[in-house]
Amino acid sequence: MSGNADGLSFPTSLGTSTADEIRLLGQNLTADLMGRVSFGELAFWLVALRRPSPSETRVFEAVLVALADHGFTPTAIAARLTYLSAPDSLQGALAAGLLGGGSRFLGVTEDCGLYLHEVLQRHQASGGTLPADEDGWDALALAAVQRTRADKRFVPGLGHPVHKVCDPRTPALLEIAEQEGLRGPHLRLFEAIGRVHEQVLGRRLPLNGAGVCGAALADLGLPVELLRGFALLARAAGLLGQIAEERRRPIGMDAYLTIDRNAVYVNPDEP
Amino acid sequence: MSGNADGLSFPTSLGTSTADEIRLLGQNLTADLMGRVSFGELAFWLVALRRPSPSETRVFEAVLVALADHGFTPTAIAARLTYLSAPDSLQGALAAGLLGGGSRFLGVTEDCGLYLHEVLQRHQASGGTLPADEDGWDALALAAVQRTRADKRFVPGLGHPVHKVCDPRTPALLEIAEQEGLRGPHLRLFEAIGRVHEQVLGRRLPLNGAGVCGAALADLGLPVELLRGFALLARAAGLLGQIAEERRRPIGMDAYLTIDRNAVYVNPDEP
Amino acid sequence: MSGNADGLSFPTSLGTSTADEIRLLGQNLTADLMGRVSFGELAFWLVALRRPSPSETRVFEAVLVALADHGFTPTAIAARLTYLSAPDSLQGALAAGLLGGGSRFLGVTEDCGLYLHEVLQRHQASGGTLPADEDGWDALALAAVQRTRADKRFVPGLGHPVHKVCDPRTPALLEIAEQEGLRGPHLRLFEAIGRVHEQVLGRRLPLNGAGVCGAALADLGLPVELLRGFALLARAAGLLGQIAEERRRPIGMDAYLTIDRNAVYVNPDEP
Amino acid sequence: MSGNADGLSFPTSLGTSTADEIRLLGQNLTADLMGRVSFGELAFWLVALRRPSPSETRVFEAVLVALADHGFTPTAIAARLTYLSAPDSLQGALAAGLLGGGSRFLGVTEDCGLYLHEVLQRHQASGGTLPADEDGWDALALAAVQRTRADKRFVPGLGHPVHKVCDPRTPALLEIAEQEGLRGPHLRLFEAIGRVHEQVLGRRLPLNGAGVCGAALADLGLPVELLRGFALLARAAGLLGQIAEERRRPIGMDAYLTIDRNAVYVNPDEP
Repeated sequence: MSGNADGLSFPTSLGTSTADEIRLLGQNLTADLMGRVSFGELAFWLVALRRPSPSETRVFEAVLVALADHGFTPTAIAARLTYLSAPDSLQGALAAGLLGGGSRFLGVTEDCGLYLHEVLQRHQASGGTLPADEDGWDALALAAVQRTRADKRFVPGLGHPVHKVCDPRTPALLEIAEQEGLRGPHLRLFEAIGRVHEQVLGRRLPLNGAGVCGAALADLGLPVELLRGFALLARAAGLLGQIAEERRRPIGMDAYLTIDRNAVYVNPDEP
Repeated sequence: MSGNADGLSFPTSLGTSTADEIRLLGQNLTADLMGRVSFGELAFWLVALRRPSPSETRVFEAVLVALADHGFTPTAIAARLTYLSAPDSLQGALAAGLLGGGSRFLGVTEDCGLYLHEVLQRHQASGGTLPADEDGWDALALAAVQRTRADKRFVPGLGHPVHKVCDPRTPALLEIAEQEGLRGPHLRLFEAIGRVHEQVLGRRLPLNGAGVCGAALADLGLPVELLRGFALLARAAGLLGQIAEERRRPIGMDAYLTIDRNAVYVNPDEP
Repeated sequence: MSGNADGLSFPTSLGTSTADEIRLLGQNLTADLMGRVSFGELAFWLVALRRPSPSETRVFEAVLVALADHGFTPTAIAARLTYLSAPDSLQGALAAGLLGGGSRFLGVTEDCGLYLHEVLQRHQASGGTLPADEDGWDALALAAVQRTRADKRFVPGLGHPVHKVCDPRTPALLEIAEQEGLRGPHLRLFEAIGRVHEQVLGRRLPLNGAGVCGAALADLGLPVELLRGFALLARAAGLLGQIAEERRRPIGMDAYLTIDRNAVYVNPDEP
Repeated sequence: MSGNADGLSFPTSLGTSTADEIRLLGQNLTADLMGRVSFGELAFWLVALRRPSPSETRVFEAVLVALADHGFTPTAIAARLTYLSAPDSLQGALAAGLLGGGSRFLGVTEDCGLYLHEVLQRHQASGGTLPADEDGWDALALAAVQRTRADKRFVPGLGHPVHKVCDPRTPALLEIAEQEGLRGPHLRLFEAIGRVHEQVLGRRLPLNGAGVCGAALADLGLPVELLRGFALLARAAGLLGQIAEERRRPIGMDAYLTIDRNAVYVNPDEP
């Protein structure tokens, strides 16, 4: 720690201000950003430290839109029940909902982006170049799925409890990425996994929406360790919608009573 | 509760899905929303249940951009320290940061929107029509500030620890709202408060950025009880930026050690 | 800020340590506290800055025991759903459960302690002495309930959705406090409210358990603004029990699916 | 789901109530628990589904006392900053503090208990019996440390930034466990690791307090996957103490300003 009067120094490139100017990311907040960049652009910029192109923005915002709300998920219910209990603290209800954004429900986006990233890194670290055609991608995908299977791990991004044949977000996002010239190696590898996994796993599973979002975010060059953060940001908007609806047409009390009134007492000594 | 097989029914107008379609807000997610609406538009729509116009979107996203990050605020530091302690749980760090979004630092946006809304409602409830000119707004503002002072309450949205003369976000947002034809009654009343409060309070304070954002959101017709939610959404993006920077150029450990190493033990019996 | 080398100084009377000693509250942690004070005693001490007597400890721990778990409350369900979604983050599930500890469900303890405290303070500030007999307490209680009614506010601690006639925790805690010589002015006033409120409100409501806990904590001299904190501490233990049971005999997935499968889509345009 | 009128059934052995009785863990809350079991006993019982013996209670509460507060840790600072920002939401400040209870700072208790548990399980699964003397424990510990080193993983529970030679909590807790006849296999293995690790790691590290607490909790038969939960419960009491002190003698604003005023702006393009 060094740099000023009392020897303390905390570096940052984000927000800072003087009496008459506010700077953010090296820009003048009021002259360069407000009214000029969309909220999605700013969110991208805050993490990537560069302004996304219009094409990147379109893909990025399509991902956020895809992940914002999935109805009565555990996180949405948790947020509504917390709002029911503590309506004076909107931030608490929102935080409670986001805390469900862990490994099982919201983590697929990050897990999938990370998985694809590692496969590509390993391929390139061993001297491989990116495949030039579909057959090349299929070969790379097949080796990856086989290795993952051999390690007794799961391939992330496969399967969905409701969309058992095709998750409609997957072709939709692929098309948007194609239109914008952003169907990059992560998305191509993900598509190839969709084509080849049946050979290894013995059954055909759909490429799910959370997974394709992770692949698209990775193709945008966003840090794979932080992809969960974008799923959480998207979900923050969805949770606001859930809380707004809870005020307008509440279900929290009914949901709580449904559980509580159907409680069945089990002796603690029973196995 | 009624409506289906076992008598339970939980109504919602947000997300729902069948095997091959996902609907959100009555729209087809993949055909109508992804790639077609910005993330900011969707966030507005989720709460207001209507798609904002392009002008409304521009004002709304300018507000989110204005509120996203203010540097090393208590909430940013809390998020970074939580990430330092529990790097495996990005959602926890984000939630910890948002939990500071309460009455003191992030609440001004909501408090200000609510205050202006109540002044306007009371005026209209007593038969008043909206003022037609600046003098009319000044009279309404003066009466409101006087009443608030008499109640020994604070007028929200006035004053800023750094921007002591003028908060640059205030004229910037007013200009954007004016360009878009959205300088409505809440903003006009807020501006009038800026002109008249000195007569009552005895000193001139700037209209702060959090306050003008609350006024602009209220003019967009968003529910005033939920304005804090938009400040939290904006902050979620800012906190992602803070966490990304904490990975890239950490300050959490230094911040913690600065506090800990300068702890001075006080006997608990001392007053 | 002043006091040492670089001018920073953060005072504390809680934990501190040197290379071979840990101090807490001015005590030697290992020699004076571990194995010598109960966890409940320490929790009291940490807030009140004094060690409670054995009698105080018994009343205090009885309160914590009374408040620990109430079955499938909204907070318990929120914690279980969060654990379902993010099983890798126990702290997130616990935090999500505690975030429901707000005004509506867990806040009664604090509200009631604060209410009784204010009635007593007002009485003493206007020169009154504490009543010497039941009639005196009844008169004080009657005036308080009448004033609260006139202000169109609720008297906290009255009524319970399940225990409509008598909340069994109320006589139980009163008896423990009586045994320990700790049935002080807050409890006596609360009992008097139980006797007189029907005269004002027109119907007889039970004194509820959350309320009597608040009165007992206030009689222990704990700061009334922090009583909610003890309800939260008690609930933290209960939530651990809920999460342990969720691992052993899960209901989270069933609870979630019960809500989700009984979702009924309502057109967003419907009122 | 089955069992009653509308086919729903949510089993539980924790809290339940009728109009005039509250049951918890198969006990009558008011007749059997309040005033009869300490808060620590109840917390143990809620997870283990059995009442601890007085000896177990003494060890268990000593662990909670040891873990409650360590001064200005990142979690304590996060709780104080959140309280500064949102003083209306005590639950939010407490939750923010607990969210730092992850892998790095509070996780050692769980990691260590789990590690010792796995070593013992592997030993017994391969037909080994528990060692009868110190030499036997040393051999078991040596093999475990060597294997962990070979896997390039860390042995949890070793080392401390302040207590570089001896963490005073370790001998203190061992002594209490010995007094109560509860120095079981996890503690003995942990002690053996303390004796032999230098042979493998090349330097002598102290057995830290978080680690010895994990070993003691595992010896009490508590589920190793939930040990972090007890660290969090202990910390909940410590955080209440921090928040109470923040009200009495605040440091949050100074801490925040110390960071903010020593911010040094770095151009985002710099590496």
